[in-house]
Amino acid sequence: MEPLNIERLAEKVLGKIFVPVEASGRHVHVTAEQAKSLFGHGLTPDRPLSQPGQYVAKERVTVVGPKGEFRNVAVLGPERKEAQIEISLTDGRNLGIQPPVRLSGDVKNSPGCTLAGPEGRVVLEQGVICARRHIHLTPEEGRRFGVADKQVVKLQTFTARPVVFEDVVVRINPEFSAAVHLDYDEANACGFQKGDWGRIIP
Amino acid sequence: MEPLNIERLAEKVLGKIFVPVEASGRHVHVTAEQAKSLFGHGLTPDRPLSQPGQYVAKERVTVVGPKGEFRNVAVLGPERKEAQIEISLTDGRNLGIQPPVRLSGDVKNSPGCTLAGPEGRVVLEQGVICARRHIHLTPEEGRRFGVADKQVVKLQTFTARPVVFEDVVVRINPEFSAAVHLDYDEANACGFQKGDWGRIIP
Repeated sequence: MEPLNIERLAEKVLGKIFVPVEASGRHVHVTAEQAKSLFGHGLTPDRPLSQPGQYVAKERVTVVGPKGEFRNVAVLGPERKEAQIEISLTDGRNLGIQPPVRLSGDVKNSPGCTLAGPEGRVVLEQGVICARRHIHLTPEEGRRFGVADKQVVKLQTFTARPVVFEDVVVRINPEFSAAVHLDYDEANACGFQKGDWGRIIP
Repeated sequence: MEPLNIERLAEKVLGKIFVPVEASGRHVHVTAEQAKSLFGHGLTPDRPLSQPGQYVAKERVTVVGPKGEFRNVAVLGPERKEAQIEISLTDGRNLGIQPPVRLSGDVKNSPGCTLAGPEGRVVLEQGVICARRHIHLTPEEGRRFGVADKQVVKLQTFTARPVVFEDVVVRINPEFSAAVHLDYDEANACGFQKGDWGRIIP
């Protein structure tokens, strides 16, 4: 039996009622072939993310748009079937790209950009999106919060600049771990700090 | 009698029920003395803002922080009794400054920065804030919406990424014109486009 840690117990109870909020910075997903072109080899895991199996790679890229570029952008692994560049609307202004607000994986007819790595460049015809805000839940958590996969809910943030985000999509998968994913525009708009919680309003 | 313009009539009616939303980019207020140091003369009006008497000046400055700078930043007139630099939390990350979220005018013990103009530099001990979201109303509009000066309300945005902003401060003054003022983090978080409306929830 582990010793009683009051703080950990309190967090555990909170997690039964609320959902942890996370802010996702701009990042890139690439295919195995694109990783080879950019880095000369596949992605190397650096540190794990909250969603099981997902990781930040040691490799970094430059994202190039018509009006600007971002250096040292995180690449998330493992490799995917299709490239996806997730940026905020603020990032889009700086790059000169207007990304549609979409769920991850829905890149059809989105704008492209160029990725530059130490070993080469990849020109993408499409793939730049602004991630639609969403909540990852396991089926058990979905039942507890009374929400279904693909359901659109509201999320009230307990943050320095409180907000109720409308139009938040629930995504349910046994592989997930409970987390609200906001981009940095949203995180700053609600004054998010690491460790903040949100409440699902079905 | 003016000819009937249906579009204008519809906007006029909407304005009785909702409040126009505006996004404020980063900007600077300076004193007459500081304008002299930066530009060699007082501010020159370029174009008027929605609040009567306020204008964007022809003059522009560079805002310098420990980690970065922004060139070509708008200066708003007329001159004030004290300098104030209004930036978003995203801007703060880029400058290396953590601005408190405050109402305009409340700059006490806020961080400083350096302003650079064509004729000189001004080092500010304080003045950098992130503007707390607020709604400008006339007394008549306040009565119609059922809210008082300094009342904290919610604001539901009719925007591409709908949000209910909590903790929005109402400011009432006969000199004002109805407008919600968001910063660009907030504007992008709710997918704001010019011409969008919001609903006050008292």
